[in-house]
Amino acid sequence: MVTKKIDNLKFVFEPKSIAVVGASREPNKIGHVILKNFIDGGFPGKIYPVNPSAKSILGLTCYPSVRDIPGKVDSAIIAVPAKLVPAEIRECGEKGIRGVVVIAGGFAEIGNTALEQELIREANKYGMALIGPNCMGVLNPSSRVDSVFLPIYKLGRPHVGGISFISQSGAVGGCIIDLAARAGLGMAKFVSYGNASVIDETDLLSYLGKDEETKIIVLYLEGLKDGKGFMDAAMEITKDKPIIALKAGVSKKGAEAAMSHTGAMAGSADSYRAAFKQCKIIEADELEELFDFAKIFVQPKCSGDRVAVITNGGGNGVLAVDSIEKEGLKLASFSKETNDALKDVVPQYTTVRNPLDLVGDADSSRYERALNIVMRDPNVDAVVVIVLFQTVAIDSGVVNVIVRASDERKKPIVTVSTGGEYTEMHRRILDSYDVPTYPSPSRAVKALKKFVAYSSYYGEHHAIGQR
Amino acid sequence: MVTKKIDNLKFVFEPKSIAVVGASREPNKIGHVILKNFIDGGFPGKIYPVNPSAKSILGLTCYPSVRDIPGKVDSAIIAVPAKLVPAEIRECGEKGIRGVVVIAGGFAEIGNTALEQELIREANKYGMALIGPNCMGVLNPSSRVDSVFLPIYKLGRPHVGGISFISQSGAVGGCIIDLAARAGLGMAKFVSYGNASVIDETDLLSYLGKDEETKIIVLYLEGLKDGKGFMDAAMEITKDKPIIALKAGVSKKGAEAAMSHTGAMAGSADSYRAAFKQCKIIEADELEELFDFAKIFVQPKCSGDRVAVITNGGGNGVLAVDSIEKEGLKLASFSKETNDALKDVVPQYTTVRNPLDLVGDADSSRYERALNIVMRDPNVDAVVVIVLFQTVAIDSGVVNVIVRASDERKKPIVTVSTGGEYTEMHRRILDSYDVPTYPSPSRAVKALKKFVAYSSYYGEHHAIGQR
Repeated sequence: MVTKKIDNLKFVFEPKSIAVVGASREPNKIGHVILKNFIDGGFPGKIYPVNPSAKSILGLTCYPSVRDIPGKVDSAIIAVPAKLVPAEIRECGEKGIRGVVVIAGGFAEIGNTALEQELIREANKYGMALIGPNCMGVLNPSSRVDSVFLPIYKLGRPHVGGISFISQSGAVGGCIIDLAARAGLGMAKFVSYGNASVIDETDLLSYLGKDEETKIIVLYLEGLKDGKGFMDAAMEITKDKPIIALKAGVSKKGAEAAMSHTGAMAGSADSYRAAFKQCKIIEADELEELFDFAKIFVQPKCSGDRVAVITNGGGNGVLAVDSIEKEGLKLASFSKETNDALKDVVPQYTTVRNPLDLVGDADSSRYERALNIVMRDPNVDAVVVIVLFQTVAIDSGVVNVIVRASDERKKPIVTVSTGGEYTEMHRRILDSYDVPTYPSPSRAVKALKKFVAYSSYYGEHHAIGQR
Repeated sequence: MVTKKIDNLKFVFEPKSIAVVGASREPNKIGHVILKNFIDGGFPGKIYPVNPSAKSILGLTCYPSVRDIPGKVDSAIIAVPAKLVPAEIRECGEKGIRGVVVIAGGFAEIGNTALEQELIREANKYGMALIGPNCMGVLNPSSRVDSVFLPIYKLGRPHVGGISFISQSGAVGGCIIDLAARAGLGMAKFVSYGNASVIDETDLLSYLGKDEETKIIVLYLEGLKDGKGFMDAAMEITKDKPIIALKAGVSKKGAEAAMSHTGAMAGSADSYRAAFKQCKIIEADELEELFDFAKIFVQPKCSGDRVAVITNGGGNGVLAVDSIEKEGLKLASFSKETNDALKDVVPQYTTVRNPLDLVGDADSSRYERALNIVMRDPNVDAVVVIVLFQTVAIDSGVVNVIVRASDERKKPIVTVSTGGEYTEMHRRILDSYDVPTYPSPSRAVKALKKFVAYSSYYGEHHAIGQR
């Protein structure tokens, strides 16, 4: 049954046809927002609204029940109140639907364990892959599945990419989708799984471990249903794909809050930390770190820990060096060839050293020449490129310089740009070209540290960074 | 001489008339950008461009030398190459100008100590308050002084407010101005002081300590010229105003980089940490923390460490609680009255507890009722309000609810909103109304921790938070 259930996840993530059960005409109803998001998102398959009291919604023929839908239906999003859910699952099962997302809360997380047990029984009867209840469900930018019931103008949707995200919490998951969209980062699959009553985090991890579109897996966890199974799955996957995880509810009071939130048994911070370490899961301490860490993994594997810093602002270079030492990385010593070559690049009055200060009047071409020299230095394993976009001399051309250098993919490049609106725009462009870009030196260097550590483990297995 | 020099800083920060020495017709020259920024910024006093080879620039009469300017000149921005600077200072001195900003680098920081000594001699001859060299100078939104030579479309300018910022590095300083403008935070004075050859960090600290517009002082330091003097000044100021400082060059390699950057002797991380602690300076570890910490100080003093959390997303509440425990704050226990009153506010199926989950369908009015009850609870010293702006139910009205509650100023409120464009816009509105707002629970709670610690010290002296 377990294998079948996981196999059926393909209907959830890549359905050819979908039913929205509880579709509504009211714009502020979840059953309306979901239907609209499928239509506006350009879902290429059949979309069937289900509602016994409507003939058509948003221009689509509406069916009284899933059983009335002509032809095959792969997946159903169930957006009706909790107490009506088990009956709908039964109807879906009889109709042959094997992928189901249940949005409603009101089950075990508020003490209604009997209702949740009924839901589980019904789903298992048909070997269904059921996500939820008490969740936001699934977002898949490539198949255009989108059960995230938040309006697009409030919560952006990311483009197609390699990062998949598994979130127990719908709210945190929503924040992450929105942040990814805003940062210009691509996403393979997103799933908010709520109470995990049928499909749990381990099932999802196993599925995404085998998913070809997924290059990096990011997890937000409040607890684990099956610690041993999770660790076994993770241990296998991290040989091929990085897993980055944030464990919430690590504090005593936080664990109590998590318990009442998704009914998860939280477990101690130390036990999770030890388990993550054992499975080579990269642990994040903060929400922001999840993406800070994830986005660096599109870069080519790092062959060591010797870091070069290039900057057009001296102070920002000093901060980067502080972070490099704090994180236990090394500041690279340039080779003699590099030092000699760089003398022709920087103004005469400056000293060639690492951090390399191109000074305030550096333009794109000075960056290009410096970056090409430093990338060739065998003493350098990774390059932190700091660009202050605020200077008179710099222009958007430096983005092309960095993207081109990064595309040669000989060694990892991360960019740091601190500032307001003009700077943010350039950060987004760089991120959208798979050059991981950070708002401060410390965040860039922290991510680099995780990448260096994983690269050395991972080296025994595969090359990462293929796009 | 020292007192005179500091007194003359008023001419730098609040001049009635200003000369731009080295004003240029070329849009990409610093001497052009500075002149244009004074004109576009609406500087209310007289502006005199000085350039021997131009009759007029940007519509203003140009003078061959400062001596040719008719009438009194309070301050001069000198934007000519290093070797020409001492002669210009002499001319300024003879003209009676007592406030001077020298932009150019090329002095002690690259080994030209003789030239720097000459500059110092000339300035001291006249008891001048000279900022620089090798700096970006001064920004004062209220007097509209702006020697920051970066175009406004690349680097935003903040509105008038209570935070003053002293930065050794021009580049870091520029980033901070830009971040403040983007975040909607107000600024009293900004100064990038570079080589500190005449006016140093201690002089600036003393001046801003007495400045009525300055409520909070933020420092970016690479080194100190006079540790003892600095500590004495800081010790006195922190009785009245919070000082937040980031010390760069704390690592061994970072100290070397700082040395070559502004010629600063960096000193060990530990010695700085100890000194900061002794003077009650609030230390930041990262660039982002400077503003994270600074902006909370407009809130009313915190009477203790018991924190309430209100949220419309369960997972985000769990993360906040984790941070509260990690930072050593306490999760408040609501009083019986609060618990009873809140039962009428939250949906029946949820449990009243701290963190208070208003759940996903919370609207502005549910926030208002909850916030009013929690703010009245004597067991609560501070409130963290998490708002996920992405939900269907919430609207911009919740901003008014929070601002109104904050304006009553009975106890501090901080807001957390994680997300993309729509969320960022709302964060900016809240920040511009002096409600400190953060992109993640951990950043909010870290700032709150600093605030609680300082409130308990500060309590012996004054009330903070007056606007």
